[in-house]
Amino acid sequence: MATAKKTVFFFGKGKAEGRAEQKNLLGGKGANLHEMTRLGILVPGGFTISTEACVFYTNNKKKHPAGMWKQVEENLKRVERVMGATFGDPKNPLLVSVRSGARVSMPGMMDTVLNLGLNDQTLQGLIARSKNERFAYDSYRRFIQMFGDVVLGIDKQAFERLLEAQKHAKKVKLDTDLTAADLKDLVTLFKRVVKDKTGRDFPQEPKEQLRLAINAVFESWDNPRAVTYRRLHNIPGDWGTAVNVQAMVFGNLGDSSGTGVAFTRDPGTGERRFFGEYLMNAQGEDVVAGIRTPQPINQLKKAMPKVYAELERIYKRLEKHYREMLDIEFTIQDGKLYMLQCRVGKRTAGAAVKIAVDMVKERLIDHKLAVLRVDPAQLDQLLHPRVDPTAKVQKIAKGLPASPGAAVGQVVFTAAEAEAAAAKGERVILVRTETSPEDIGGMHAAQGILTARGGMTSHAAVVARGMGKPCVAGSQDITVYEEHGYLFARDLTVRRGEYITLDGGTGDVMLGEAKLIQPELSGDFATLMTWADKYRRIGVRTNADTPKDAQVSRKFGAGGIGLCRTEHMFFEGDRIDAVREMILAEDVEGRRKALAKLLPMQKADFKAILEIMGDLPVTVRTLDPPLHEFLPKTDVEIGELAKKLGLPAERLKAKVDGLHEFNPMLGYRGCRLGIEYPEITEMQAQALFEAACELRKQGKNPYPEVMIPLVGTLKELQMQQEIVERVARETMKKYGVKVRYMLGTMIEIPRACLVADEIAQVAQFFSFGTNDLTQTCLALSRDDAGKFLPLYVERGVYPDDPFVSIDQAGVGALMRMGVEKGRAVRKDLEVGICGEHGGEPRSVMFCHQIGLDYVSCSPYRVPIAKLAAAHAALKETVKVKEMGEK
Amino acid sequence: MATAKKTVFFFGKGKAEGRAEQKNLLGGKGANLHEMTRLGILVPGGFTISTEACVFYTNNKKKHPAGMWKQVEENLKRVERVMGATFGDPKNPLLVSVRSGARVSMPGMMDTVLNLGLNDQTLQGLIARSKNERFAYDSYRRFIQMFGDVVLGIDKQAFERLLEAQKHAKKVKLDTDLTAADLKDLVTLFKRVVKDKTGRDFPQEPKEQLRLAINAVFESWDNPRAVTYRRLHNIPGDWGTAVNVQAMVFGNLGDSSGTGVAFTRDPGTGERRFFGEYLMNAQGEDVVAGIRTPQPINQLKKAMPKVYAELERIYKRLEKHYREMLDIEFTIQDGKLYMLQCRVGKRTAGAAVKIAVDMVKERLIDHKLAVLRVDPAQLDQLLHPRVDPTAKVQKIAKGLPASPGAAVGQVVFTAAEAEAAAAKGERVILVRTETSPEDIGGMHAAQGILTARGGMTSHAAVVARGMGKPCVAGSQDITVYEEHGYLFARDLTVRRGEYITLDGGTGDVMLGEAKLIQPELSGDFATLMTWADKYRRIGVRTNADTPKDAQVSRKFGAGGIGLCRTEHMFFEGDRIDAVREMILAEDVEGRRKALAKLLPMQKADFKAILEIMGDLPVTVRTLDPPLHEFLPKTDVEIGELAKKLGLPAERLKAKVDGLHEFNPMLGYRGCRLGIEYPEITEMQAQALFEAACELRKQGKNPYPEVMIPLVGTLKELQMQQEIVERVARETMKKYGVKVRYMLGTMIEIPRACLVADEIAQVAQFFSFGTNDLTQTCLALSRDDAGKFLPLYVERGVYPDDPFVSIDQAGVGALMRMGVEKGRAVRKDLEVGICGEHGGEPRSVMFCHQIGLDYVSCSPYRVPIAKLAAAHAALKETVKVKEMGEK
Repeated sequence: MATAKKTVFFFGKGKAEGRAEQKNLLGGKGANLHEMTRLGILVPGGFTISTEACVFYTNNKKKHPAGMWKQVEENLKRVERVMGATFGDPKNPLLVSVRSGARVSMPGMMDTVLNLGLNDQTLQGLIARSKNERFAYDSYRRFIQMFGDVVLGIDKQAFERLLEAQKHAKKVKLDTDLTAADLKDLVTLFKRVVKDKTGRDFPQEPKEQLRLAINAVFESWDNPRAVTYRRLHNIPGDWGTAVNVQAMVFGNLGDSSGTGVAFTRDPGTGERRFFGEYLMNAQGEDVVAGIRTPQPINQLKKAMPKVYAELERIYKRLEKHYREMLDIEFTIQDGKLYMLQCRVGKRTAGAAVKIAVDMVKERLIDHKLAVLRVDPAQLDQLLHPRVDPTAKVQKIAKGLPASPGAAVGQVVFTAAEAEAAAAKGERVILVRTETSPEDIGGMHAAQGILTARGGMTSHAAVVARGMGKPCVAGSQDITVYEEHGYLFARDLTVRRGEYITLDGGTGDVMLGEAKLIQPELSGDFATLMTWADKYRRIGVRTNADTPKDAQVSRKFGAGGIGLCRTEHMFFEGDRIDAVREMILAEDVEGRRKALAKLLPMQKADFKAILEIMGDLPVTVRTLDPPLHEFLPKTDVEIGELAKKLGLPAERLKAKVDGLHEFNPMLGYRGCRLGIEYPEITEMQAQALFEAACELRKQGKNPYPEVMIPLVGTLKELQMQQEIVERVARETMKKYGVKVRYMLGTMIEIPRACLVADEIAQVAQFFSFGTNDLTQTCLALSRDDAGKFLPLYVERGVYPDDPFVSIDQAGVGALMRMGVEKGRAVRKDLEVGICGEHGGEPRSVMFCHQIGLDYVSCSPYRVPIAKLAAAHAALKETVKVKEMGEK
Repeated sequence: MATAKKTVFFFGKGKAEGRAEQKNLLGGKGANLHEMTRLGILVPGGFTISTEACVFYTNNKKKHPAGMWKQVEENLKRVERVMGATFGDPKNPLLVSVRSGARVSMPGMMDTVLNLGLNDQTLQGLIARSKNERFAYDSYRRFIQMFGDVVLGIDKQAFERLLEAQKHAKKVKLDTDLTAADLKDLVTLFKRVVKDKTGRDFPQEPKEQLRLAINAVFESWDNPRAVTYRRLHNIPGDWGTAVNVQAMVFGNLGDSSGTGVAFTRDPGTGERRFFGEYLMNAQGEDVVAGIRTPQPINQLKKAMPKVYAELERIYKRLEKHYREMLDIEFTIQDGKLYMLQCRVGKRTAGAAVKIAVDMVKERLIDHKLAVLRVDPAQLDQLLHPRVDPTAKVQKIAKGLPASPGAAVGQVVFTAAEAEAAAAKGERVILVRTETSPEDIGGMHAAQGILTARGGMTSHAAVVARGMGKPCVAGSQDITVYEEHGYLFARDLTVRRGEYITLDGGTGDVMLGEAKLIQPELSGDFATLMTWADKYRRIGVRTNADTPKDAQVSRKFGAGGIGLCRTEHMFFEGDRIDAVREMILAEDVEGRRKALAKLLPMQKADFKAILEIMGDLPVTVRTLDPPLHEFLPKTDVEIGELAKKLGLPAERLKAKVDGLHEFNPMLGYRGCRLGIEYPEITEMQAQALFEAACELRKQGKNPYPEVMIPLVGTLKELQMQQEIVERVARETMKKYGVKVRYMLGTMIEIPRACLVADEIAQVAQFFSFGTNDLTQTCLALSRDDAGKFLPLYVERGVYPDDPFVSIDQAGVGALMRMGVEKGRAVRKDLEVGICGEHGGEPRSVMFCHQIGLDYVSCSPYRVPIAKLAAAHAALKETVKVKEMGEK
C-alpha cells in the first residue's frame, strides 16, 4: 500500500512543519503561523490542511485525499498535547477555529468557523474553565449560528431574527446586555432552528463538526463571491485554499485578557514607530465592530508592562526576520500573549517609499528589494497635489475621477475666460458641459477641469490626463448654464467667480478654497527613483506637446519625448485661425498661404521644445486628427467664424458638413491628410528641421524623430518619407549643418502589425499607438464604449478596462507580432509605445516583456512608469523571497 | 570564351525557333508569330529578341547581353533570305517593323516603329518596287516622324505642325490629298526638324536605325504610362518586353493589296461565324482611323475568292490548333495573304459562355477548360436586366455605378410612396438625397434606387447590391427636392411620376421608359454552371434576409443561406413600431412586452425562409446594428414618432441623443446588445427554434445555424450561447422534436482572429464578416473613405479597393490566422465568409486557398462565386496550356 501524501502540517510549541516560503501549499495565513511558531513565538497550536487537499477535494467529487482524515486526527492529538486540553473533553475541552487561507489574501471571501468543539457537554467545561457562564453561552450560541450559516447553509437571518426578538423581549438594546440566561434560551432556540431547517439535530460530536467545517471551507473556495473576487483580481481558480485548524484562545476571559492589532511602523507616514490599538476583555471582532473604543497600543505599556515588553520583542523580531513592515494580530489570554496572525502591512504610497528607503538605511533590505517594495500604481498618490485632510470644505457634487490631483480656483465657463484670468495670474477651474479641442487653451490655463458630461475617456478626461491636470468628468450632479454664468450642483447654485475645489482622484467637487498639499518629489522619493533607474532596462519618455510640457517632463526625469502632438500647438491663441484658413482654402495655393502663417509658430515651438530636451530624442508626430476637429460645430459658432473670415455662413456650413464623418476614428486623418495634402507635411517638416538646424548651428545637438501617424501600408510611409527626407536634406543644406534624426511611424492599426516587416523596410522606429490599436483591434470606440464597457469589465468579458491596461491577449498579440516582424527586417528597429497605456504599471511590464525600447506617458506618470519598468526587470532576475501577498 | 546565351529567335518560311508556349520568353505577340509560322501559315519573316534581353538591358545600364547584336545580324540575314530582299539595299530594300510584345498584352503602352530601313537610298528602291512614288514618300515621312518621336524623343507636335502647314499651303483637307511632291517637301522639312532638335542628321544607316529602335522599345517598358498600366493590372515590373523585328508587308500597294482584322467567331453573340472587316489598298492604321469604311469580311469572298478561301482555311486551322476563338490580323500584298497577328479574341460574357459550351460540343475542349474560359467577373453582365441598346432614351445625369442592372420606373421620393405604388403593382424608382435604414422597405419595393449623395459604399449602394437591385449612387448631377416633388438633373426638371431608366452598371440616368432585356439563366449558362459545380470544392451560399430573397437565392442555385440579417425583418410594415417601442422601453418588462409583439413576425419569417431552403443550412445572425439606426433622426421625424407613441418629444429626443455615437462602427452593437439585453437574443432564438420545430413536426428537416455578431472574446460568445442553447432545449422539449442546429460566430473584428483558438472552444462555425474586418483592420470607415480611398487606390497605396477585393496582406492574414487557430482547436470547424467580398472572384479564390468551407454573397452573385470557386479549384490541378493572355 502506497504511503498517503502528507496533506496536514502541524505547528505549535516552537515546532512547525511548514515555513513562510510555502504559501502555495499552506496559504499565506498558514505559512506565517508556521513561521512564527518556528521563530519561537507563542502561537496557539494547530495544523494546516494543504491547498492540494482542497484541489483534490474539488476535483474528486468532494472526496478527501487518501489518508487526510487520519493525518487530521493525528495532528489534533498533537494540538491537544501542546495546548493541554482535549477535543470533546467535557472537563477541559479543546476548542478550535477553522479558517480558510489561500495563497493570497481574499479578505472575507471564504468561510471561517470559531469555537468549534463546543457541545452541550464541553460547554460545561468551558464554563468551569472560564468561570464565566455568560461568556460560555455566548460562545456556544455564536458557534451554532456560524456553523449553521457556513456549514449547514441556513440563512443567517433565521438566527438574527431570534436574537432581535430576544433583545426586544428583554427590552435591551445591545447584544452585550443579554444575560447568561437569555443566551441559554437562545442556544435552545438556535438548536431548534437547525433541526427545523436541516431535519437533523445540531451535531454534537466534535469530530463530525470538524469534518463538516473543513469541507465547508474547501467548498467556500468556489462560492460565487470568491469566484467573482478571483476573476476581478486575476487569481487562478485552481489554486485552492488551505484550511487552518487552530486552538482557540480568548481575549474576553476577564481583565487580564485582551486583543489587539498593530503595525510595526506607521502605515500612514512610514515612521518607525509601533502603531496600533487594543481592547482589554474583548475578542477580535469587538475591535472591528467599533462598539467599544480601542486604546492606543502604547497604553498597553502602562497597563501590562510585561506583556507589552514581550510584544515589543516579538514585533521587532518579526520585522527583522521578514524584513518587512508587518500587520500583526494578538490575543492576551489570562496575561499570556499569543500571536494570531502576521502579514505584510498595507500602507500609503508615502509610507511605502519611506519604509523602503529606511529599511535600506537600516541594512534590512537592498536597493532591489526596496524598489520592489513600492507598488508603481500606488505612486500616483504622491505625484499630484492633494486636498489637505483637515481642510473644511463642503462636498457639493460627485463625478468621475478622470484625472488625479486636487485643484482650487474660481469657476469660469469658457476657455477664453480661463485664458484671460490665467493671464492675470488668477487660479480658475474651467467648468463645461463637455470640452472640445477648441477648449485646449483654456484647459491649459485652468487649474482643473469639471464637466457635466462624458466618461473616463471623454475629451476632457483624456486631455486632462495628458496635461496632468486634475479633472472631474461627467458629474451628473451638475448642470452648466454658461450663458447665465452659473451652475447647479444638486440644489446649490455656484456663480462665476466663486471658488471650488476639485479632487480628480476621488471625483469630489467641493465648495470653497481648500488648502492643498503639494507633492514632494525630492528626498526619499528621489532616492527610490535613482534606484529604479539603475535597474530598469527600458526607457521612459513622456508625451509633451508644448515647451511647458517639456519642462515638466524634465522635472519628472523623462528620457525624451515619445509623442509631441503637433496639432495641439494649433489651438493656441490665433493659430486656430490660420489652421481654419488652411482647411477652408479652395486650392493648394490657398493652403500654402495659410501654412506659411503657421510655419513660424510651429518652428518656434519646436525650437523651444528641442532646446529644453537637450540631446534627448523628441518624437514629433505629423498632423493627425480629422480636420473637422478644428472647425466649429454649432450654427452660432459657424456664423461667428464666417463673419471673421468674411465668408458666407452657408458656404462655411457646407464645408463643415462636407467634412462630417460617421466614424471619424476610421476616417480621414493621420497620414491620409499628409498624402492628400503633402504641403502640410512639408510645412511641418520644414518647421522642425529649421528649428533643429538653428540649434545645431548654436552648437546644440537636437534629436528629432519624425513620426507618421496611422500608417497601414509601406506605400503610405514611403510617400511621406519622400517629403520629410527631401525637406530635411534641403534644410540642412541651407543651414550648412547636419542634424541627426530618424523617420518612423505610429503602429496604431491592426494592419500595420500584420505587415510590420514591410513597413520596417522604411521605418527606423515604431511607436505603438495603443489607444487607437485598442479601438480598432477590439472594435471599441473610446468615445462610445461608456454605454457597455463598465458592464463588460464587471462581467469579466474583458479582464480589465482595455483602455486602462493593455489587452494582452488581443492588442498585446498584435504588438508582439509587430515587434517580431519589424525586428526581423531591421534588427536595430527602435520600438516604443506612446498610448496612454505607457504609464500603466501592468502595461509597462508587458512592454518590457515583449522587448520594447521605451514607454512614453504623460509627464506625471513618468515615475510610475520608471518604477514599473524597474519591477519588470527585477522580477526577471531577483528571486523574491518575500512574505508579500502580491 | 563562354557561348553567348541565345536571345534572338528566328521565324519565317515555315520554320520557327519558338512556339506558342514560350510567351514568357518571346512575349505573347512573338510566341504566336512563331506558332503560326510553325503551322505553315504565311507570316512575314522576322525574329524575336527575348524578354530576357530586355531585362538584362534594364538592369545593366542599357547594355545588351553578350552576343545579342551578333545574333540580331545573323537573323537579319535569314530574314533577308526568306523575304528575298536586303536590309539597306537601294534596289530591293528589306524594310522592317520593330514592335514591343510583353508576356501579356499592354495595348498602346509601349512603342513601335514601322518602315525601318528607309533612307534616302532605299527610298528609291521602294519607289521602284512599289511603282508608287507617293506611297514611298509617305512611308518615308511617316518613318521619320515615328522614329523621331519614339527613338529620338522629339515632340510629335513638331512634325504634326509642319504637316498641317503643308496642307494649309496646298489648300487641302486630308493627308491623302497631298501629292508625292508635297510629301517629298515634308521629308526634307522633317529631316531638318531632326537635325534642329538633336543636333545630328537623321540616321541614314539602317543598322544604326535598327539598334536605336530596339533600344527604344526596351526602354519603353519603363515609360510612365507602361509603369502605371502595370501597376493597375498587377503586372510585375521585372517581366520585360520582347522585341519583334519583322519584314514589312504593304496592304496599300494597289487594288490587289489590302488589310483586315477578324474574329473566328462572333465576339458579341458567340455564334460560330467568321466575323470581321477589311479594306483594299490600305494599311492597318487606315482601318483603325476610320477615314474609309471597311467592308464586312464576307465581301472578300466575292472580291478575292482565292484569298478568302485561303483565309478561311487559315482561321479554321488556327482555331482548331489553339482551341480558342481568335482575333486575327492579316495583310494582302499584291494578292498574297500574310498573317500578322493572332491572339485570343475579346468577347462579351454571353459570347464567352456560348463559345465555351459550343467548343465542348465540338470536342475542341473539355468541361474543365470550358469553365476556365469564362471570366467570373465578366459574368455579372449576364445576371441583370440590361437596357436594350436600341432603346431611344435621353441621358440626363451620371452617377456612380453602385449596383449593376437596369431599372425602369416612375420617380418617387419616399419609401412610403414606393411601397404604396408597389402595392398597386406600379414600377417606381426611389430617388433620395441619401438613403437610411428606414428606407429599406421602399428600396425593396422600388425597381431601382438613385441617390444624389454617397459613394460606392454608401448605405444605398451596399443595401442595393445586397438586394441585387440596380442603383446609381451619388449623382452630383441631380438635386432632390422631395418636399416639392421634383428633382433637378442638370438643368432639367423631372417630376414625381415621370418615368426614368437607370443603368446601375454604367451609372447612367435616362429620361423615359427604356425597353429592358432580361437575363437568361438557362441554356448554355445553366450548362456551364453545372460544370462549374462539378469542379468547385467550396460551397456557395447567399445572403438573404427575407423569404423573397431566399426564393431568389434558390433560383440562382445557392447551397444555403450564409447570412440572414434579422434586423432587416424589423423594417417591414408596422414592425418598426414595435422595435422602437422596445428600444424606448424604460425597463426589461417594457422591452419584453415589445419583443413579444415582434416574436410572431420573426417566427413567421424564419419559418418561411427555413421552409424555402429545405434541408440546406440557414445562418441567422442575431440583432447587430446600433439601436439608433432604428430611430428617427430629424426633429420633424422625432416629433411625428413622439406623437404616435404619445411621448413628450423632448424625452424622445433625449433618448435619441443618448444613443448617438461618435463611431457607431466601433460602438454599441452586435453581441453587445444581446449581452446588455439578453431578452432580445432570447426572443430571436425562440422565434427561430419555434419555427424550426414546427417544420420538423411536419416532417421537414430545417437546419438553422445561429450566428452571434461582433464577438471578440470567448466570454461574449459563452454568454450568448447560454441563452440560445437554453431556449433551443426548452423549445425542442415543448414541441417534442429534435432540430439539428449549430451555434457559431461572425469573425469580424481583429481580436476575434487573434483569439480564434479560444472562441472555437464554443463556436461550431466561423463566418468572416470581411466588411467590418476590413474597416477595423485598416481603420477605414466604409461610410467615410470616399474622401481619400479613390486617391489611395489610384496611387497604389492599396492594390485594390479593399471593400471590393479582400486586402490579402492585411485582412487576409487575419483570416488565415483565424482559420488556423480555429481549426487547431476544433478540427471540423465550419468556416465561411459572409462579407460582400464573398461574391468577388479574386476574393473567392483567396477563400478557396485558405481553406474556407463556403462563401456567401448576394443572390445575384452566386453564379459568379461558383464560377470563381471552380476556377480556383481547377487552377490548382489543370495545367492550363492556353494562348490566353490572362
